[in-house]
Amino acid sequence: MNQQGKHISDIPSYVKDLARNARKAAVKLMRVDTAQKNNALTVVKQLLDERRNKIQSMNKLDLDNARENGLSQSMIDRLELNDKRIDGMIQSLDDLIKLNDPVGEILKSSVRPNGMKIEKIRVPIGVIGIIYESRPNVTVDAASLCLKTGNATILRGGKEAIHSNKVLTDILQDALSLAGLPRESVQLIETTDRTAVGELITQNEFIDLIIPRGGESLIRRVVKESTIPVIKHYNGVCHLYADKDIDEKQARKIIINAKVQRPGVCNALETLLVHEAIAETFIPDICADLTQKGVEIRGDEKTKTLYPNSIAATEDDWYAEYLDLILSVKVVKNLEEAVTHIETYGSRHSDGILTNNIDTAKEFLISVDSAVVFHNVSTRFSDGGQFGMGAEIGISTDKLHARGPMGLEELTSYKYVVTGDGQIRE
Amino acid sequence: MNQQGKHISDIPSYVKDLARNARKAAVKLMRVDTAQKNNALTVVKQLLDERRNKIQSMNKLDLDNARENGLSQSMIDRLELNDKRIDGMIQSLDDLIKLNDPVGEILKSSVRPNGMKIEKIRVPIGVIGIIYESRPNVTVDAASLCLKTGNATILRGGKEAIHSNKVLTDILQDALSLAGLPRESVQLIETTDRTAVGELITQNEFIDLIIPRGGESLIRRVVKESTIPVIKHYNGVCHLYADKDIDEKQARKIIINAKVQRPGVCNALETLLVHEAIAETFIPDICADLTQKGVEIRGDEKTKTLYPNSIAATEDDWYAEYLDLILSVKVVKNLEEAVTHIETYGSRHSDGILTNNIDTAKEFLISVDSAVVFHNVSTRFSDGGQFGMGAEIGISTDKLHARGPMGLEELTSYKYVVTGDGQIRE
Repeated sequence: MNQQGKHISDIPSYVKDLARNARKAAVKLMRVDTAQKNNALTVVKQLLDERRNKIQSMNKLDLDNARENGLSQSMIDRLELNDKRIDGMIQSLDDLIKLNDPVGEILKSSVRPNGMKIEKIRVPIGVIGIIYESRPNVTVDAASLCLKTGNATILRGGKEAIHSNKVLTDILQDALSLAGLPRESVQLIETTDRTAVGELITQNEFIDLIIPRGGESLIRRVVKESTIPVIKHYNGVCHLYADKDIDEKQARKIIINAKVQRPGVCNALETLLVHEAIAETFIPDICADLTQKGVEIRGDEKTKTLYPNSIAATEDDWYAEYLDLILSVKVVKNLEEAVTHIETYGSRHSDGILTNNIDTAKEFLISVDSAVVFHNVSTRFSDGGQFGMGAEIGISTDKLHARGPMGLEELTSYKYVVTGDGQIRE
Repeated sequence: MNQQGKHISDIPSYVKDLARNARKAAVKLMRVDTAQKNNALTVVKQLLDERRNKIQSMNKLDLDNARENGLSQSMIDRLELNDKRIDGMIQSLDDLIKLNDPVGEILKSSVRPNGMKIEKIRVPIGVIGIIYESRPNVTVDAASLCLKTGNATILRGGKEAIHSNKVLTDILQDALSLAGLPRESVQLIETTDRTAVGELITQNEFIDLIIPRGGESLIRRVVKESTIPVIKHYNGVCHLYADKDIDEKQARKIIINAKVQRPGVCNALETLLVHEAIAETFIPDICADLTQKGVEIRGDEKTKTLYPNSIAATEDDWYAEYLDLILSVKVVKNLEEAVTHIETYGSRHSDGILTNNIDTAKEFLISVDSAVVFHNVSTRFSDGGQFGMGAEIGISTDKLHARGPMGLEELTSYKYVVTGDGQIRE
C-alpha cells in the first residue's frame, strides 16, 4: 500500500460493495442493545492501548510521506499519533461509553380516539458516510459516535493519513468481531482515488447520510454531486456586535477571548461590529488590547480613522474566515445595520451581541438567523462539549435535521410505532 | 399567458430574483407573531370566498387546455376547482388557524456550570421550494402550512394548472399585503419552462429546503441536481405480514381495509406476506374476500397453488406500488423471511404485522426499518391527520429531519440562544 492506498481495479463495484455491506450491518446494528455497543467500544479502547506500536509504525509511514511531500509543519502535527493522542482517543472512548444511548427513547406517545397507540421512537439513522481530511484520530472518534448510536459508517479519510486510518480501522473491526458485532459496521475506503468519493456520495440505495468535514471545496463538491442527504459543516464567519449600551470592561474581555483564545477554530471571532455611539472610545481601546495580543486589525473607514494602526478592510474581509490572529472591525449605525451585515456576510454559524440592554439583546437574538446566538458570552462556547453533549461529531451550518453542535441525538432518526387491536379506516 | 405561463427571457435571473426576494421575506417572517400569521390566513380565506368566480374562470382555462390536450378524466378531475374544492381549501385554512404555532417553543433549556443559559428554540426553516404536480389546491395548502410556520415559499406547480395556480397565488399575495406581511412570502414560478426547476434547486444561497411532491422521475431529478437539502416523498410499497399466531377475522378486516378503502394513495397495501403455517386456509379465505371486492391477486408459486384464481407474480410485482385494486401475495417461512422481503423490496414507508403474539410483534416492529410500523392496524392510518397533526404537507420517506407524516413541527428548525454575563472560555 502506498499513498494511493490499496490498488483497486473497479472502484464503482468496490464502493458499492462497501455500501451494500454497510447496509447489512446497519440492519443488524438497529437491534443491538446499549450494553453490546458499549462492550465493543471497550474492546476498541483495549486494542488501541495494546497496539500502540503497530499504530505508531503505520503512522510513521504517513509522517515520512508527509515530510517527503513537503507538507507544512502544522499539517504534520495534525497527522501525528503520538502517545498523548492515543491516550486522548482512549479517554474519549471512556467518556462516550458513559454517555446515555439515545436509541430507543420514546419522543412522543399518544392514544388516538379510535384506541390505537402511536409512539415516536428514536432509532439509528442507518448508514453514514464520513468524508474527512488529515487528522487520523477522527477515524476513531467519528466511527465510535456512530457505533454508539447504532449506525454503520463508511469512512473516507485524507490520503496523507491512509496508513494510520487503515490500522485504526483494523482495530475497530477486530473489536467489533470480538464483541460479536458485524465487522462491516465500520469500513474504510482503502483507496485514495478521488473517484471513490463520487461513487460514495451516489449510493443513495444504501447510505442514509453523508457528513463532509473538510475544506470548502470538498464540501461544495459533495453538495453538488451527492444524491444522499448531506449535513454540512461550513465556515464559521462569527460576529460580535458591541452595542451602545455596553459594559465596556466585560465586552473587551469577551472579544479578546473570542478572537485570541484559539483563533484556528470555527467558533473563533472574525468580525467585530461596533455601534457608532461608542465607537470613538471603544474602538481605540479594544483595538489596542487586540494589537497587544498580536491581532491584526482590518477596519472600515471609520475604524481606520479612530485607530490608524489598522489596515483598510476590503469587501473580501467581511466574508473572511481568517482562522488566524486577524480581525475585521466595522462601525455600524444601529442594531439593524449590524443584523443586516451579519445576514449579508455571515455564515449562520455563531454570532453574538454585547449589551446591557435586554430589549436590544432580545431583538438581536430573534433577528439573527444563526445556529447559535449569544448574549454577553464568548462565541467560543459554540461547541458540543461546552453545551454538555459530551461528544460532538461537528457543528452543522445546515438548518435541516441538525443545526449547530451535533452530538449523539443528532446522529439518530425516529420511527412511528402504531399498535392497536384491529383498527381500520372508515 | 398560455400553457407555458408568462414569457420570461432570462430564466436564471428570474428565478434568482424570486429566491433573493423570498429570503428577504423569510428574514421578516422569522419575527412575525402567531396573531399576525393567523390574520393573514383569515384574509386568504375571505379572498378565496369572494373571488370564486375569478378562480373558476381561470381554472376553466386549465380545464379547457386539459381536454384539448387529451388528459385523462382522472387528471381533469384532480385539476378542477369546483365550489366543493374551494370550500375544502377554506375549511383547511380554518383548521390550520386553530392549530398551535410551533415557532418559539423552547425544546430544551439548561444552565451550564459556568452560569450561562442555553435554550434550544424552534424557529422557521427559512425559504422552502415546493415542486408539485397537477392538483392546484396544493398551492394554497402548502403555502399556508409554510406561512403558519413562518417560512417563505416558492411554488412550482404543474403546467396543466398554471392559470389556477396563478390566481390562487395572487389571492395569497393580496392577503399577505392586506395583513401587512411581505407579498414575497409566497411566490409562484410563472413559467412552466423546465429549466426553471434546475435553477430553483441550485439556489442554495437563498433556499433552505426543497420538497418535491410528484412522480418518481421528478423526485429523482431533484435529488440528483439539487444543491439544497431535499425531503423526499417517494413511493409507498406497503406490506402487511400475516403471522402464524393470527386472529383471522381481524386480519381479514384489516387487509381488506388497507387494500380496498382507497387504493390510489401511498399508504394503501401493495403486498401481503403470509406465514406458511396458516397459508393453507388463510390464503384461499383472504384471496376470495379480495376477489369479491374486485382486487386482482398476483401470487408467488404457493399462493397460485392455494388460490388458482391468482396471476403469477413476477419479480417486478414485489417492487410495485400499484395504487390500484391489485395485490401481490407471497408465502414466507417465518418472520425473518418477511422482514428480509420488506427490507429488499419495500420503500420504508408503512409496513405492519398481524399477530396475537406480542413477542413476534415486538420483533417485527424493531426489525422493520420503515417510517411507520403497525401492529394489528391498517396501513391506511399512516397520515398526518390520523396521527393528530392537524395538517400534513406530505409523508417523508427520508430519515433525516422528518420521517413519515410531516406536519407543522416538521416545517421548523431550531436555534440555540445562549445568554450569560461575561463568560469566556479558559
